Amino acid sequence: MATKRKICFPITSRAYYGRSQLLIRKLHAHPDVDLKLMLGGSILLDKYSRHVADDIAAGGFDIEASLFNVIEGGNHVAMAKTACLTALEFTNTFFTTSPDVVVICGDRFEQLAIAMAAAYLNITIAHIEGGDVTGSIDESVRHAITKLAHFHFVTNDDAHRRVLAMGEDPQFVFNTGSLDVELAAHVSTTITSDRVNAIGVGHDIDIDRPFLMVVQHPVTTEADNRAHLETTLRVVASFELPTIWFWPNPDAGTGEMADLLRHMRERQPHLTSHMRFITNVPASDFVALLAHASCLIGNSSAGIKECSFLGTPVVNIGNRQQGRLSGPHVMHAPYEAEEIGAAIATQLAHGRYPASDLYHRPNASQAIADVLASAALYTQKRFYE
Amino acid sequence: MATKRKICFPITSRAYYGRSQLLIRKLHAHPDVDLKLMLGGSILLDKYSRHVADDIAAGGFDIEASLFNVIEGGNHVAMAKTACLTALEFTNTFFTTSPDVVVICGDRFEQLAIAMAAAYLNITIAHIEGGDVTGSIDESVRHAITKLAHFHFVTNDDAHRRVLAMGEDPQFVFNTGSLDVELAAHVSTTITSDRVNAIGVGHDIDIDRPFLMVVQHPVTTEADNRAHLETTLRVVASFELPTIWFWPNPDAGTGEMADLLRHMRERQPHLTSHMRFITNVPASDFVALLAHASCLIGNSSAGIKECSFLGTPVVNIGNRQQGRLSGPHVMHAPYEAEEIGAAIATQLAHGRYPASDLYHRPNASQAIADVLASAALYTQKRFYE
Amino acid sequence: MATKRKICFPITSRAYYGRSQLLIRKLHAHPDVDLKLMLGGSILLDKYSRHVADDIAAGGFDIEASLFNVIEGGNHVAMAKTACLTALEFTNTFFTTSPDVVVICGDRFEQLAIAMAAAYLNITIAHIEGGDVTGSIDESVRHAITKLAHFHFVTNDDAHRRVLAMGEDPQFVFNTGSLDVELAAHVSTTITSDRVNAIGVGHDIDIDRPFLMVVQHPVTTEADNRAHLETTLRVVASFELPTIWFWPNPDAGTGEMADLLRHMRERQPHLTSHMRFITNVPASDFVALLAHASCLIGNSSAGIKECSFLGTPVVNIGNRQQGRLSGPHVMHAPYEAEEIGAAIATQLAHGRYPASDLYHRPNASQAIADVLASAALYTQKRFYE
Amino acid sequence: MATKRKICFPITSRAYYGRSQLLIRKLHAHPDVDLKLMLGGSILLDKYSRHVADDIAAGGFDIEASLFNVIEGGNHVAMAKTACLTALEFTNTFFTTSPDVVVICGDRFEQLAIAMAAAYLNITIAHIEGGDVTGSIDESVRHAITKLAHFHFVTNDDAHRRVLAMGEDPQFVFNTGSLDVELAAHVSTTITSDRVNAIGVGHDIDIDRPFLMVVQHPVTTEADNRAHLETTLRVVASFELPTIWFWPNPDAGTGEMADLLRHMRERQPHLTSHMRFITNVPASDFVALLAHASCLIGNSSAGIKECSFLGTPVVNIGNRQQGRLSGPHVMHAPYEAEEIGAAIATQLAHGRYPASDLYHRPNASQAIADVLASAALYTQKRFYE
Repeated sequence: MATKRKICFPITSRAYYGRSQLLIRKLHAHPDVDLKLMLGGSILLDKYSRHVADDIAAGGFDIEASLFNVIEGGNHVAMAKTACLTALEFTNTFFTTSPDVVVICGDRFEQLAIAMAAAYLNITIAHIEGGDVTGSIDESVRHAITKLAHFHFVTNDDAHRRVLAMGEDPQFVFNTGSLDVELAAHVSTTITSDRVNAIGVGHDIDIDRPFLMVVQHPVTTEADNRAHLETTLRVVASFELPTIWFWPNPDAGTGEMADLLRHMRERQPHLTSHMRFITNVPASDFVALLAHASCLIGNSSAGIKECSFLGTPVVNIGNRQQGRLSGPHVMHAPYEAEEIGAAIATQLAHGRYPASDLYHRPNASQAIADVLASAALYTQKRFYE
Repeated sequence: MATKRKICFPITSRAYYGRSQLLIRKLHAHPDVDLKLMLGGSILLDKYSRHVADDIAAGGFDIEASLFNVIEGGNHVAMAKTACLTALEFTNTFFTTSPDVVVICGDRFEQLAIAMAAAYLNITIAHIEGGDVTGSIDESVRHAITKLAHFHFVTNDDAHRRVLAMGEDPQFVFNTGSLDVELAAHVSTTITSDRVNAIGVGHDIDIDRPFLMVVQHPVTTEADNRAHLETTLRVVASFELPTIWFWPNPDAGTGEMADLLRHMRERQPHLTSHMRFITNVPASDFVALLAHASCLIGNSSAGIKECSFLGTPVVNIGNRQQGRLSGPHVMHAPYEAEEIGAAIATQLAHGRYPASDLYHRPNASQAIADVLASAALYTQKRFYE
Repeated sequence: MATKRKICFPITSRAYYGRSQLLIRKLHAHPDVDLKLMLGGSILLDKYSRHVADDIAAGGFDIEASLFNVIEGGNHVAMAKTACLTALEFTNTFFTTSPDVVVICGDRFEQLAIAMAAAYLNITIAHIEGGDVTGSIDESVRHAITKLAHFHFVTNDDAHRRVLAMGEDPQFVFNTGSLDVELAAHVSTTITSDRVNAIGVGHDIDIDRPFLMVVQHPVTTEADNRAHLETTLRVVASFELPTIWFWPNPDAGTGEMADLLRHMRERQPHLTSHMRFITNVPASDFVALLAHASCLIGNSSAGIKECSFLGTPVVNIGNRQQGRLSGPHVMHAPYEAEEIGAAIATQLAHGRYPASDLYHRPNASQAIADVLASAALYTQKRFYE
Repeated sequence: MATKRKICFPITSRAYYGRSQLLIRKLHAHPDVDLKLMLGGSILLDKYSRHVADDIAAGGFDIEASLFNVIEGGNHVAMAKTACLTALEFTNTFFTTSPDVVVICGDRFEQLAIAMAAAYLNITIAHIEGGDVTGSIDESVRHAITKLAHFHFVTNDDAHRRVLAMGEDPQFVFNTGSLDVELAAHVSTTITSDRVNAIGVGHDIDIDRPFLMVVQHPVTTEADNRAHLETTLRVVASFELPTIWFWPNPDAGTGEMADLLRHMRERQPHLTSHMRFITNVPASDFVALLAHASCLIGNSSAGIKECSFLGTPVVNIGNRQQGRLSGPHVMHAPYEAEEIGAAIATQLAHGRYPASDLYHRPNASQAIADVLASAALYTQKRFYE
C-alpha cells in the first residue's frame, strides 16, 4: 500500500487561513494526503487572530509547529528580519517533517522566505495565486516565488499568460480561479447587527442600512502611509455614514497607521463618531460584510476579487493593487481627497453591480487538492522555452 | 555638491570575489561611488579563503561588516539555514549602511536571501549574470533573483532574451559579457611550477608539461555526489597524467565529497599519486592554470565561460551546467566512466581551441560600473509586457 | 599617547536608559573613555520609548548599532527567543566594535544573553546592581550575570555580601549605591499638571492634590498576571482617587495585562474614570511623579529604591520584589484585594516617610565611571575562596 | 494514573553523550520518566561524531529534534553565535515538547545558552558537574549555569562546598560522584591493537607495548593555542614512543590547531612518524586506551577525573584544568617544553598509580536518575542564606 503524500501548509496570517480554508479542509479530507499545518507569523499573535488559531485547533488538523517569529517594529527592517527568521525556523520543521510538497500562498513577504527554504531542501513547491500584477513589494515577491515553484495555481487568464512568459512549463500551470472568490460564493452572506457590534469598538452598526467599509493596509514600498490613511479617514468622515473600519494588517508601516487611528479616535471624536473599528473577523463574516456594504474603500485585494463576484462597489486607493485585473465595479483613485470623495459619491449613487466570473471558477479548492494529491512530483526546474 | 551614490557589494565566497574583482576596483575608483563591501559566508572561513580576505583587506576598501554565518553540516538543511541567517544579518548591515544600490552576483543560494532582504528594505538591486539556464538549484535561484532585481547585467544573448521574457523592462537589461571572461582576458597567464607546488598537497606539477585539471563541485539537488566524484577520480587516474585537483566548494554535499578525496588519498595512493590537491588559489592563478591545462574536467562554470575565451578543452560532467550556452570547446558527459574517459581522450587528442567571444565583451566591468554609478534608480517594479 | 578605553553600553529598555543616564553622561564626558551605545530590545519600539530614543540621539553619543530584535508574543517563548536573537546580533556588533568593557545593567532577561555573548568574546564585563534578592526569573538572571561579570557595582550592603559569597574577588566588588536613587536625588521634583495631562489618555490629574500611582509589571514566572492586575485595579478604583496608571513593561505576560486594561477602559468606565493611563515618561518626570504621589502601588523596584530616598509610601504587591532589602516606607501585600486595600488605606493615613540612605550613596555614577575608565582589566575569572 | 515526568536531555557534543550514556540509559529505562533527547551542536556533524549519532539512533531513544546550529569559524565570534542560535532553536523545541525538567551537563558554552532558554520558559533545570574550578571560559559558564539551575549533581566535595557558597539550597545539591568515572569503572578496559588501528591515520599502535596518549583541546580564552600545541608536539616527538594523538575538539581555536597538526604531518614527517591521529572513538574505547596508556598528556578533564580512578599517569599542561581538584597521579606543567618533557619522563619512570575515589561514587547515574524522576520540582529560585 502506498504511503500518503505529505503536504505542508505554512500559515502565517489570518488572511491566508481565511482564503485557504476550503482547500485546507479538502486536503485534510483527501484519502491520499497527510496534511501538516505549520503556524508562524502573525497568525499566532493574539491581537490579530486568536479566534483564527482557535478555529484551526478545532479543525482537528495536525499542527506540526507553532513558531513565534514576528519581530516587532512595524518597519522594513523588522519585516525583512521576520522573513529571515521565519525561513530559518521553518527550515528546521521542514527537515523534521520531510514533506513531499509545500504549499505557498500569494505574495506575503515571509512566504517567499519559506519558499526559498523549501527550495534549498529540494521540496516540491506549489504556489497559489501567482502571475498577478499589483503594486508594492508584493509584485516582486509574487514573481520570485513563481520562479522557485514547481506547480502554479493562478486565478485568472492574465496571470496564466504571465506565468508562462516567465518560463514555466505549461503542464504545471493551472487556472483554477480564486480561492477567496470560491469562499465568497460558498459562505452564507447573512449576518446580524448584533454579531457585528459584539466585535471591535466604536459606533454601533445597523447592518440593514447603508454603511461604508474601509480596509486600507500599509504599502510597504511607500513612506506616507500615515498621511494617506488620514486623507482617507477625513474623506470617509465627510460622508457621515456609519462605517466599519478594519485595522491595517501588520506589515511595515502598520505602526504609524495604528497610531493615526488611535489618535483620531481620542482627539478627533467628531470625525470618528460614526465609525466602528474592528481588528478582524472570521473570513465568512468578512464576506457577509462585503455583501452588505454600500461601498468598500481602501486597497484590499478583496475589493478587486471577492467584490467582483459579490457586486459590491469599490473605491480602490493608491498603488497597492495597481495593475491587477479589475472589473467595472472598481473605481481607482489616487491619494487625493477630492478624487476619493468623488469616487465614493459615484459608487453610492450607482449601487451594486452584477456578479462577474473574472476571478471565479467553481470548485477551485477541489481542483487544486486533486493536483496536489496525485500529480507526479519533480524538483529540478528548467526554464521552459 | 551631490553626495556619492552608496553601493553595497556583499561577497560571500572566494569565487565571487575572484570574478568580481575588476568591477570592485572600478567601483572603488569611481568618483561618484562610495563602495561598501560586506563579507559573509565562506569568504571568511580560513580553510577556503584566507588569502582572499587578506587581498580584500589590502585593497583599501571599506569593509562594512564581516559576518560569520555559515552553518556547518554540508547538507541541505545547513545550506538553507546559512542563507536565512546570512539574510538576517545582512538586513542589519543594510539598515545601518542604508545603501542606494546592492549588487547581487550570480546564483549562489545565499545571494537570493540577501536580495530578498534588500528588496524588503526598498533598496535598488543590481543583478549580475542573470538569465542563464543551468542545472541544480542555481537554476531556480538565479531567476528568482531576476524577479527581485531592478538592473540586470547579463553575459550573453540567450540570457538577455530570457530576462526580457520574464517581464523585465528592456531599458534596465544590459548584455555586458562575463566578468569572469573579462578577467581571464585581462590577467597574465604566466605561472611557474614553483608557485603551483607551494600550494596544496600531493604530487608536484610541471606546468610546462601536459596535465589535467579537475574542478567538480557538489550538485545540491542530487544525492550521489560522492559516487559521482569517485567515478571521475577513477577515470582521471586511469590517464596517469599529472593532475591538479581542486577541492569542492562548500555547498550541500561537500562533506561527503571531501571525505571521498581524503579517503582516496589515504587508502588508494596508487590512484592519487599523480594528483596535487589544492583548496584554492587567487583568481589570476586559476586563470593561468586553465590556460596551461591540457583539459579541464568537472562541472565548473569556468569550463563553459573562461575556457571558451582561453580555448582550453573541457569535459563537462553531469547536470550542474546543463543548458548553459556552451561553445565547441566543451564536450558533455553524463556520470558514466566510459563516456567521461572517451571525452577526455578526445579532448587530449584535439588540443586547444581557438578563442571565442561567446561570453566576452571588452570592458564589462567598466560598463557595469558606469550604469551603477549614474543610472536613475527606482524601487517599485512592474511586470513589463 | 594611550588609546582611550572603549566601553560598550547596551541599552535594551527605556527603564535602563532612565536609570543609567547619569552614568552614560559621565562616561561620555570622561577623557579616557570612548563610549559606544548599542540599542536593541524595546528601546527601539515606538510605542514604548520613542522620546527616549530621541533623547539618546540628541545626546551626541556614538550609537554603534540599532538592532530590532524583540519577537512579538508577550509570552515566555517570545521572551526567550528575543534574548537569544539579541545576543546573536550583539555578538556581531561586539566583534566589529571590539570593546574593552561591556556594561551590563541589572537583571533583564536579554542582558544575561548579552553578557553571555560578551563572555564568549573574552570581553571584560561590568555588572551594575548585582547581588539583590527578588522574585521572578530576575532572581536567577541577576546571579548568573554576576558569575559571568568581572567588575561588580552593587547598591547596598546585603548585595555586597552575597556577591562575595558567590566567589567573586573582593577587589572587584564595589558598593556604590543605586543609580536610580542617585538620579532621584539629582533631578528636579517639580512637575506641572499640564505636563502630566499632555501625556497618555484618560482622567486629568491635579498634581497638587492627592493621587495614587500604579506601576504593576508582569511577573514572568507566574501565570495569573491578568487576574492579579484586575485585583489591583478594582481595589485602586474603590478609593475613588485620581490615579496615574503606568502601562506594564513588555515582558512575557504583558499582552494579557494590556488587554485587561483596554477592556476595563472600554467596558468598565465607572471603574477607570478616575484613572490616567500613561505608557511612559522621561525618567526625571517619573521621579517627580513619585515625589508627588500619595502612594505608589504595584511591584516596581522604584517603590523599594527611589521611594526609600523620596519618602513616598509604597504598597508592594506580590512576589516580584520579594526578598529585596526594603525600608519602613514599604508595606507588602499578597495578591488579595482585602490586604492590598488595607495597606493602601494605612499608607494614605500615614503620609510621607523620612528620606533613607538604604540605597543611596552620593556620586554613584562618578564612582562607577572612574573604575570603568581606569581599573586594570582582566578576563580569566577564578572562583575566589 | 500519573503521567510520566518528561525529561529533556540536550546533547551537543560527542563528549557529552559519552559521559552521560549510563544516565541516559537509566532515564530511558525508568518507569516514571519520558525521556526526550535533543541533538544539536557538534554531535550532528559527521566529521566529529557520526558513529555517536548512529549509536544514539540505535538506542531506541525518542529524539525530539536534530538541530544544525554550529556556525563555522572556529573562533570566538562563531562560538558565541553558535550558542545563541542553539538557544534560539532549542527554545522552539522546549516550547513544543513542554518538558518538566531539562538536564544540563558541565560547562560547554552552548549549554549555558540552553539553560538560559529553559529558565526563561520556567522549566526546572538540573545541572550535572557544577562547582568545579578550572581555567578558560568554562569556569564562568559553569557557575552561571549553577545560578540558573534548580537541582545540582556535583562530583566531589570541593564542588559541593562551592555550590552551597553560591547560595544554592542544600536540599537540592547532591554529591553523586562523576559520571565519567562511573563509566570508566563500568566499561571493559580490554581493547585490541586491530581495533585502534582501524581508526584514524598514521603509525600503527601495539596496544600491549608502551605508548603515549595526547588530548590537547583549545583554551578559548588564550590566543596561542597553535604555538602551545606545537610545543607539546615537539616534546612528545622527542620521546620517540608510539603515540595516540586525539584531534582537538571544535571550540574556538580549533582551526589553527588542526592546521598545525595537518602541517606537521605533511611537512615534518620525522616528528610525526610515531604518531596515530584519531578524531574520536566511542567512550568505552577511550577509557580502554586511557587504561593502557603509559602517560596521558594534554589538558583533558579525563586526565584529572577518569585517570584518578584508572591510575594512569598524567601530565596536565597549561590553564584549562587549572584549579580543578586533582590527585597525585597528575603532574602539572606550564606551556614550556623543558618542564613538559621533565614531567613526562618522571611519569614514565613512575608507572601507574593506585586507584583513587576522589571523583568516584558507585551508581552515580542511578542516584541522579532517581532524583530526577521523583523529586518535587520547583521553578522560582531564591538565594539561600
